[in-house]
Amino acid sequence: MTADRSNTNPIADVRMRGFARRTTVADTLAWLDGQLRALPSESVPLAELAGRVLAHDVVSQVDVPTFARSMMDGYAVVADDTLGASSYNRLALEVVGEVLPGQPPQVGVKSGQAVRIMTGAALPSGADAVLPVEKVTVEKTPADGERIFAQDAVPPGKNVGKIGEDIPRGSTVLRTGRHLRPQDVGVLSSIGITESHVVRRPRVRIVVTGNELLPPGSVPRDFHIVDANSPMLSALIARDGGLAINPGIIADDPDSIVEAMRDDADIILVSGGSSVGQEDHAPVVLGQHGDLAIHGIAMRPSSPTGMGTLDDRLVFLLPGNPVSCLCAYDFFAGRAIRVLAGNAADWPYRQSQFPLRRKLVSTVGRLDYARVKLIDGQAEPLAISGASMLSSTTRADGFVIVEDDSEGYPDGTVVNVHLYDYS
Amino acid sequence: MTADRSNTNPIADVRMRGFARRTTVADTLAWLDGQLRALPSESVPLAELAGRVLAHDVVSQVDVPTFARSMMDGYAVVADDTLGASSYNRLALEVVGEVLPGQPPQVGVKSGQAVRIMTGAALPSGADAVLPVEKVTVEKTPADGERIFAQDAVPPGKNVGKIGEDIPRGSTVLRTGRHLRPQDVGVLSSIGITESHVVRRPRVRIVVTGNELLPPGSVPRDFHIVDANSPMLSALIARDGGLAINPGIIADDPDSIVEAMRDDADIILVSGGSSVGQEDHAPVVLGQHGDLAIHGIAMRPSSPTGMGTLDDRLVFLLPGNPVSCLCAYDFFAGRAIRVLAGNAADWPYRQSQFPLRRKLVSTVGRLDYARVKLIDGQAEPLAISGASMLSSTTRADGFVIVEDDSEGYPDGTVVNVHLYDYS
Repeated sequence: MTADRSNTNPIADVRMRGFARRTTVADTLAWLDGQLRALPSESVPLAELAGRVLAHDVVSQVDVPTFARSMMDGYAVVADDTLGASSYNRLALEVVGEVLPGQPPQVGVKSGQAVRIMTGAALPSGADAVLPVEKVTVEKTPADGERIFAQDAVPPGKNVGKIGEDIPRGSTVLRTGRHLRPQDVGVLSSIGITESHVVRRPRVRIVVTGNELLPPGSVPRDFHIVDANSPMLSALIARDGGLAINPGIIADDPDSIVEAMRDDADIILVSGGSSVGQEDHAPVVLGQHGDLAIHGIAMRPSSPTGMGTLDDRLVFLLPGNPVSCLCAYDFFAGRAIRVLAGNAADWPYRQSQFPLRRKLVSTVGRLDYARVKLIDGQAEPLAISGASMLSSTTRADGFVIVEDDSEGYPDGTVVNVHLYDYS
Repeated sequence: MTADRSNTNPIADVRMRGFARRTTVADTLAWLDGQLRALPSESVPLAELAGRVLAHDVVSQVDVPTFARSMMDGYAVVADDTLGASSYNRLALEVVGEVLPGQPPQVGVKSGQAVRIMTGAALPSGADAVLPVEKVTVEKTPADGERIFAQDAVPPGKNVGKIGEDIPRGSTVLRTGRHLRPQDVGVLSSIGITESHVVRRPRVRIVVTGNELLPPGSVPRDFHIVDANSPMLSALIARDGGLAINPGIIADDPDSIVEAMRDDADIILVSGGSSVGQEDHAPVVLGQHGDLAIHGIAMRPSSPTGMGTLDDRLVFLLPGNPVSCLCAYDFFAGRAIRVLAGNAADWPYRQSQFPLRRKLVSTVGRLDYARVKLIDGQAEPLAISGASMLSSTTRADGFVIVEDDSEGYPDGTVVNVHLYDYS
């Protein structure tokens, strides 16, 4: 296939002509959000459920616990027997047996009696409370038996876990859309769940193109640079709940690119060849074989970003320049991955407010993604030239978004910083 | 081996006697922090570095880029040739060749000439700036050549990436202790790194005991409950940067427990059998075979928590009750895992302030871990009885810590809530 360089396609071939018009970030997000819905569910074993998003309500088929049990180590007693007991009025009870966790009680409790019981063991019949070990003194009897003296009173039900007390049978334990926490997995285990349906993780195919690129693990040489984008994108995709698929650098020709775009995946991320140079095949082939809905966005960096659809896949054309790639990923592709995975669309970055250490200049009509460094509790804008300077995102502590209706902010303005680190 | 139930050991056998005295949370943390240091490093391949903690400074052995390159699609020119160019004063330049990414330039540029150049391609000799494609008009010449008209001036160096501009050779790119971000991995790739030394992840052996327990995946029956703690702990350990090792439920006898405590691991988490019942073997065997430094903590829940060391392992004795287990994990074991993994000791929970919807009662001399639910922007304390009620931690949105010098707070007090969810 040879790319059609004439202008007959509904999507104009912008190569070597420049973008006629750029779509605003707001319009781009509106288009994107119209494409996004959570993926169908898949069944996942209990041990892998943490962090996943539940795709159905979970109703318990059992009571937890299924039996009345002791919540303390101590003695199962008839509560009324302990009435008036104190350290000055110790009341004697005969120990008639013992019940251990996991065992059926072999003996009942009558008035004047006690059964030694461990935390988690089933309450013997007749008993209605547990006297904790700290509240008794123990004495051997002459006939090799045991007697206790209650030093405190316990009301009926005290230190007893009732049937269904933690989780009653028939109750809804967790609801659709729940982002499963470690303790949720514990609860699912306690009601006998072995696997659960959760939102499937999006498969994200990384398509890195560029004849100037060497694969990760190479040493840069001979007018080549090493691909920084695919290792970065793989980590971002994992962060956002996707499964990265990255078989290696793709030859920079239209046939190879369209073939890679047709890989078995939910989302295609093309990095490189997204702009208006003669080697920028991705927008052309997407326009020819699918729908190039947006190409050229009013933002800095990342203005050459494009997106659209090919069959049922969402395709993002990310600039090859690493900072632009990161920014376009965060604005658009990461959002799509999070929503398809069932998560909130919002950025995973913690936000905090800091005064600007010096002015931050922007241009009306263009949104800016400005990296800042935190110095003495102030946000210092880093030089925002050079979308190729990936090191600016490692020197930065975070970024400030300057909306497209703003010319920027004078120094001292308190701005909202999205922090790259969680902690 | 039979557990020694006499009182000759320096650590008193508290079984069926109760705790004589509880250590404060502050004293426990002071002991714990004295035990903690980051583990030694291990070499990890580039693709697995995100989220890990760097164990050495990384100094670049190369310039990035190693050659002067174009930062735009356009034309490599002699900057002085464009002086005075505008859309009203278009200046003609003869196109004498082309240079593509990854290729050595075949032709130089002299005054009056231009070379077509793509983003990322090496700048030809003689050229000192790149005129972007948007700033020219192109015309075919009669002899099948090409001529451009510059519509804008570019100063020397414009749209040119200098050698070492992103990363100069010999510069320190990332420092020891760095929690590696996705873009950091990109930077490491760009300087030719294939693997890096990062702090080793702690191996954490989960030792779940309890004759009343069935393994995860079972249906609860016959005076048994299903183990909720090991699936929960596994997820918490992964969250905090550890590697969980969990071969299954351990028989509730001293020999099996001490054998499991001697497993090849950095940290041992024993869940269950940590208190003062006659079946609570863990504190006794730890005291006999290692050092039971702390047993009984002035907090609710989790008061039966213990900790100590066995050979070079840190051993945590976590209560079997799931809420106590979660709380004791979060206060002590999680902290240890995070620090051994090279991370900050702090909790990974986001914090936010809310007024109390009703009073929160506590007791002086005891720290409380109070689960709260957020309702209409207020924090509603959940009943804090029942350390066994794991479902209380799934109904809760987070927790409030009531320090041990506080009797609690009246309703309306603004309290700091640790939120279980990130988003």
